[in-house]
Amino acid sequence: MPHIQVPEGVPGIRSLVMFRPETGQYLYELAQVLLRGESPLSEAERELIAAYVSSRNNCMFCMSSHAAAARCLYGDQKNIVDEVLADMQRSSVTEKMKSLLHIAGKVQILGKEVTEEDVAAAREQGASEREIHDTVLIAATFSMFNRYVDGLASWTPTDPAAYEEMGVRMSTKGYALPTKI
Amino acid sequence: MPHIQVPEGVPGIRSLVMFRPETGQYLYELAQVLLRGESPLSEAERELIAAYVSSRNNCMFCMSSHAAAARCLYGDQKNIVDEVLADMQRSSVTEKMKSLLHIAGKVQILGKEVTEEDVAAAREQGASEREIHDTVLIAATFSMFNRYVDGLASWTPTDPAAYEEMGVRMSTKGYALPTKI
Repeated sequence: MPHIQVPEGVPGIRSLVMFRPETGQYLYELAQVLLRGESPLSEAERELIAAYVSSRNNCMFCMSSHAAAARCLYGDQKNIVDEVLADMQRSSVTEKMKSLLHIAGKVQILGKEVTEEDVAAAREQGASEREIHDTVLIAATFSMFNRYVDGLASWTPTDPAAYEEMGVRMSTKGYALPTKI
Repeated sequence: MPHIQVPEGVPGIRSLVMFRPETGQYLYELAQVLLRGESPLSEAERELIAAYVSSRNNCMFCMSSHAAAARCLYGDQKNIVDEVLADMQRSSVTEKMKSLLHIAGKVQILGKEVTEEDVAAAREQGASEREIHDTVLIAATFSMFNRYVDGLASWTPTDPAAYEEMGVRMSTKGYALPTKI
């Protein structure tokens, strides 16, 4: 049961931003520009970073929904998502993505964990300034979303079909503040 | 030295949002509504939660600047800020604030660390739904800002006078996206 009185039957962060839309508005606008706006990282890659960080933070709601969105966006290559969540270093993502996911994993622990060597290794694999920036900000942002969702014990559906539906919506419509249940 | 090429001589998050104002805009708008918008928590209390979480995340830039803002806002009672940063449980903040700072400290670790007992204890001290919500979201948000600032190794001034100046600006003018150095 959620720690505060949010709308019933509304899952995860949606229930929290309906409780407090004044802050929710900017959380959704941040998600939209960060995950759907212009970036050298594809939308699939950005959703994968979000799912990877959420998995490391053990946030089932964010992990399941963003993994579902990433699977939709990867299309024929959707197995990559589950490979990364199972064992990132042995997955079939590119070496550049591995170096960026490695940085995201460091950010998930704490910002200071990211070393000059981590960043140099990503550059050697061809990562640009913007790719490094966007990776760090996505990892930091999901360190927030994960804590908001679980810190207030918002409802986490257990039916996989619920997340498949969310993944389709998130991958086709992006992020807009929910105004009704 | 910062991990990416941000404007030189600009401290902390300011340099990062100048690198990428499209996301920075919503980060600043979130900070403004969360720390200066309508809330049952005073601006001083909200800045104190921000400084407390940043201290636990060992983010010197965010801790020093938000502690400075909190000192300005607490005025005659500014010693409270340093008491909380030194030893929250033995500080002279109210029992209600202790219960909320305790929740913020749990969120800093991970969302799931917040228990029903933690929330019940805050309610017993008179904390409202909105106070619990705002505490969790402030703690989650600074878990993001701290990771963004340190994950890209942005410039952290060491001169205390720099933070005093920031504290005055933050406490009187709030948060608006910087457009120039």
